[in-house]
Amino acid sequence: MLNTLIVGASGYTGAELAAYLQRHSHVHLSGLMVSSQSSDAGKCFSELYPQYKGRLDLPLQPLTNVSEAAEGIDVVFLATDHAISHDIAPIFLEAGCIVFDLSGAYRVQNTQFYKKYYGFEHKNAEWLQQAVYGLAEWQAEKIKQARLIAVPGCYPTVSQLSLKPLLEQGLLDIEHWPVINAVSGVSGAGRKASITNSFCEVSLHPYGVFNHRHQPEIATHLGTEVIFTPHLGNFSRGILATITCKLKSGVEEAQISAAYQQAYHDKPLIRLYNKGLPALKAVVGLPFCDIGFAVQGQYLIIVGAEDNLLKGAAAQAVQCMNIRFGYEETQALL
Amino acid sequence: MLNTLIVGASGYTGAELAAYLQRHSHVHLSGLMVSSQSSDAGKCFSELYPQYKGRLDLPLQPLTNVSEAAEGIDVVFLATDHAISHDIAPIFLEAGCIVFDLSGAYRVQNTQFYKKYYGFEHKNAEWLQQAVYGLAEWQAEKIKQARLIAVPGCYPTVSQLSLKPLLEQGLLDIEHWPVINAVSGVSGAGRKASITNSFCEVSLHPYGVFNHRHQPEIATHLGTEVIFTPHLGNFSRGILATITCKLKSGVEEAQISAAYQQAYHDKPLIRLYNKGLPALKAVVGLPFCDIGFAVQGQYLIIVGAEDNLLKGAAAQAVQCMNIRFGYEETQALL
Amino acid sequence: MLNTLIVGASGYTGAELAAYLQRHSHVHLSGLMVSSQSSDAGKCFSELYPQYKGRLDLPLQPLTNVSEAAEGIDVVFLATDHAISHDIAPIFLEAGCIVFDLSGAYRVQNTQFYKKYYGFEHKNAEWLQQAVYGLAEWQAEKIKQARLIAVPGCYPTVSQLSLKPLLEQGLLDIEHWPVINAVSGVSGAGRKASITNSFCEVSLHPYGVFNHRHQPEIATHLGTEVIFTPHLGNFSRGILATITCKLKSGVEEAQISAAYQQAYHDKPLIRLYNKGLPALKAVVGLPFCDIGFAVQGQYLIIVGAEDNLLKGAAAQAVQCMNIRFGYEETQALL
Amino acid sequence: MLNTLIVGASGYTGAELAAYLQRHSHVHLSGLMVSSQSSDAGKCFSELYPQYKGRLDLPLQPLTNVSEAAEGIDVVFLATDHAISHDIAPIFLEAGCIVFDLSGAYRVQNTQFYKKYYGFEHKNAEWLQQAVYGLAEWQAEKIKQARLIAVPGCYPTVSQLSLKPLLEQGLLDIEHWPVINAVSGVSGAGRKASITNSFCEVSLHPYGVFNHRHQPEIATHLGTEVIFTPHLGNFSRGILATITCKLKSGVEEAQISAAYQQAYHDKPLIRLYNKGLPALKAVVGLPFCDIGFAVQGQYLIIVGAEDNLLKGAAAQAVQCMNIRFGYEETQALL
Repeated sequence: MLNTLIVGASGYTGAELAAYLQRHSHVHLSGLMVSSQSSDAGKCFSELYPQYKGRLDLPLQPLTNVSEAAEGIDVVFLATDHAISHDIAPIFLEAGCIVFDLSGAYRVQNTQFYKKYYGFEHKNAEWLQQAVYGLAEWQAEKIKQARLIAVPGCYPTVSQLSLKPLLEQGLLDIEHWPVINAVSGVSGAGRKASITNSFCEVSLHPYGVFNHRHQPEIATHLGTEVIFTPHLGNFSRGILATITCKLKSGVEEAQISAAYQQAYHDKPLIRLYNKGLPALKAVVGLPFCDIGFAVQGQYLIIVGAEDNLLKGAAAQAVQCMNIRFGYEETQALL
Repeated sequence: MLNTLIVGASGYTGAELAAYLQRHSHVHLSGLMVSSQSSDAGKCFSELYPQYKGRLDLPLQPLTNVSEAAEGIDVVFLATDHAISHDIAPIFLEAGCIVFDLSGAYRVQNTQFYKKYYGFEHKNAEWLQQAVYGLAEWQAEKIKQARLIAVPGCYPTVSQLSLKPLLEQGLLDIEHWPVINAVSGVSGAGRKASITNSFCEVSLHPYGVFNHRHQPEIATHLGTEVIFTPHLGNFSRGILATITCKLKSGVEEAQISAAYQQAYHDKPLIRLYNKGLPALKAVVGLPFCDIGFAVQGQYLIIVGAEDNLLKGAAAQAVQCMNIRFGYEETQALL
Repeated sequence: MLNTLIVGASGYTGAELAAYLQRHSHVHLSGLMVSSQSSDAGKCFSELYPQYKGRLDLPLQPLTNVSEAAEGIDVVFLATDHAISHDIAPIFLEAGCIVFDLSGAYRVQNTQFYKKYYGFEHKNAEWLQQAVYGLAEWQAEKIKQARLIAVPGCYPTVSQLSLKPLLEQGLLDIEHWPVINAVSGVSGAGRKASITNSFCEVSLHPYGVFNHRHQPEIATHLGTEVIFTPHLGNFSRGILATITCKLKSGVEEAQISAAYQQAYHDKPLIRLYNKGLPALKAVVGLPFCDIGFAVQGQYLIIVGAEDNLLKGAAAQAVQCMNIRFGYEETQALL
Repeated sequence: MLNTLIVGASGYTGAELAAYLQRHSHVHLSGLMVSSQSSDAGKCFSELYPQYKGRLDLPLQPLTNVSEAAEGIDVVFLATDHAISHDIAPIFLEAGCIVFDLSGAYRVQNTQFYKKYYGFEHKNAEWLQQAVYGLAEWQAEKIKQARLIAVPGCYPTVSQLSLKPLLEQGLLDIEHWPVINAVSGVSGAGRKASITNSFCEVSLHPYGVFNHRHQPEIATHLGTEVIFTPHLGNFSRGILATITCKLKSGVEEAQISAAYQQAYHDKPLIRLYNKGLPALKAVVGLPFCDIGFAVQGQYLIIVGAEDNLLKGAAAQAVQCMNIRFGYEETQALL
């Protein structure tokens, strides 16, 4: 049994992690922690999330001393803000923990990136170099050896899972940058008081146009430029990404299918559509990324869908842990 | 033309007031004001409410000096917190303004009430005695003479409009206290950042059970006890109240109809249902209170519906102004 | 392993049953059936419910011959219209199956009831007499012996679970009929095309006032009259019931708590609230019925919440099966 | 005063037309008609749309004889299915009416188009040739002379209004086809019973990918190819279109602004954004099309928003009527 700890367990992603880990056969959930400044410190987890009443009544403990918190812990999940992850991941690592970080703090191996897109100076360049990007279907071999896994979040996961098989096979005319239009549920903004996310204010609107930090993350890891336009939609959970691409001249529909099949035929959390396209409701509450596509002439539209809190966060983190420790890939997830 | 001012114009009720006053034939909208502490001070109204872009681009001015703000103003609408209304209403009144206060600060002519239910000491007992309760269909004669009109809000308006005709006619067995179950949209909580009202947290739940301050307001003005249970629902606007009563022995359905007809046959903002019962969608965005009922034996169920921001706030305030100044009662409202 | 069959598997309740039975340790899901007239016959289950793609891809078979369908089947779940359940339950029973009927066809042991409230003549009076009402927490001993279990649905389940402990202990002044106001999600109306349930039409409205067939079902099984007012709300799943009662003179809050504790302290699917009241979100997607209450003087407000498709339908049916066959009560449910 | 008639007044667009025409200063609303087969025939309009109770209680009359219906009518609005519009428009025209057709039946002057995309043979080629495409901001001169105005619908209106100023000025590199991703509310599918549009089934999903009939309509009228991907979203009203384009080399942001200004500076129903981008909530319930854009290098993202039932249907039809008869362009609309 692995002793595991969640830091940031009061947030939406942390809560999903808690539920998964509690039902995991090989895991002992040792504690739920929150920032020592958090007004949730000391509360019961199920006070924040009444659906877990009677099932997960653990206290949310304040994280006051990281080294002490690390004692006896094998695995820690950081569902924390990137600035906090940046600071505490090394302490957990040096205490011998395997760290799954769900923030952006270790996802791009370029300290300049952090200055430009996150507005802070990355001071843990060594750990950044050692971090493995936890896009689970593509990084399994590296994840198995890793001590620090930087789990990609919602938009980057669905975008890369949708595009990578075709790029690997060289099927796209990348002079025409893929156009990624994605709509995310409000939970993507985290559990916090804000006017923008209040019930009466949410409708449907784009944001971060041409300057969202996930654009360079996607482009860096795919190795090609993309145009990425995120939107906030009036639903709690899920992401639907509609991706428009141009195929290289002569590429046939069958080659697209074959590329997806080859990449994902043995991947239990990817569901490929032979006909039809994914709808958001197919994935809400589930750990899958669903992918379908349509072709007309040289144009290709890919539709990817996932639950932003699951395959786009908590489920992928647990999937990475399963890969890392040699458990069944979907343990606790299905 | 009346020179009018709105204080608290950044909130949901203030915004509706602004729209009504701007299109009122006899009104000049002299200014939109917000608390000088508000982070919205200095912003353009349509920046907060993009639906008014190009139509109502006035600045939200900070209210720094009340006396100065009152200069040249005939009518002021206070869409402010009760503590602020309590303090500034007298200053506007003493400057000669007619004041329509949409807060609870002047609704019950009993200073003890404020200690108990609002947690503050009412220091303007004289103005409190002069205030007229602006339940428009029932207080027209008093409103015509009033200088301070305390406009009732969402739950009290629909509850009293539904029950008052029957109580006035003595048709109810009030040993059985009327049971008012009401569901309100999230806008009832005002425009502010809060976890409770964030998109991902709202579902349907009761609140303020047996201790909501609207219960004594309703009971005081009706002159009878009621059991009032408010709920928060997953919609932005509107209130639906389902009221269960016992009739006095021998009371017939026709007497109920007659009581409503007598009270409201000439009231343009009350819509009575001869068959069927109101649905929330009938009133959202409209200044009406819709009322229907069903009888079985000695039991009566009344269903009242209104838009909490309109007949339950801004529309009723403008209706009161129309009555006060002798304009057509629905001017600017329909 | 029990061989089980679901009839009516294309509906929302049938779909939930399918998911539960598939993951049940002691069950083999032998088939998913629909009416032979259904346009869904022949389709794949996951075509209707894409969330089950890759997990439950069974065909929806037309039920053309009931006797043939019963061959080799130990247990059948009827998630069918009451008229169909009325007709086919006896055929399955006579073929030796244990039948869990989720319709209203066998819930009240009074054939007159069916004429009056369902508009048909009940022709299976013998089976009706043998049927056991599957309110699981209260009927376990009878369920263990039963061949036909009439599983109560959404409103009756939450209403009775909330009131029964207090009535059993004689704590309520039943001269004052309990007032049950309940709001249900749209899935309660079943999976079918209708204007009323179309996305643009749903808001919040009462229906079936004083004439809903669940009123006499509740009253009959509780043995006391109630006033029951159902509402349709703008959400997919869940029911919240707010019940206003009068206590007998002298009854203390502690007696209420004790009555609930005594009734439910060992019932895994009832969650009692010591403080606060249930919100809808606490139960959506879960098999629980949550119950909380508040007292003031002689008045009591009980709030019950459940997922209408789960504790109000499919979960309770599986719970009854678990009780009937001596499995752990929450097998497959948690 | 113009005598006007609405055919198809029971639908969502017809209802909005009715409300506009009733408050139009120069219009007498002579009748609301529905197909003689419609189950709504004979009902009161406000029975279907309770928000209009007491305000628009006209009967929905069955259209049994078109020639008789045309008697004394100056203007008819057809909010009917394209097949019906195709058949009845000529009869109204020949009776001397001016016809505003909101269906697709007369929008593309190519009878082959109807075979291919609508599946029927167009038999009124002469009227098709005379029809004027009612994209109001661009066709005013032709509309003033027209007898048959084919009012464009939701997706084509927002798409063309967003792109046309830039195409007219030759600013786009049209080798890179503009990518139009649009999300529409459920009302776009009309008022009808269907599983797809039922409350529990709607989430967010693309449809009509590469084969929606609005793609060739847009491309034909713009004179350039586009990739158009519509989506159904979980809201009742509104369309948000996110359009990704490539600029011709050397085109500056100021030229984009200038093109929009030139096209729309004097158009009262177009609201241009100098900063920020439109959100859906800015336009719901309003007759505007809001347009904003962002540029990065050679890439341009345009965001257009409108209420699909208003600027995308009823408001544009009334706008066309106002232009046709020389009334103020926004009469009855603002």
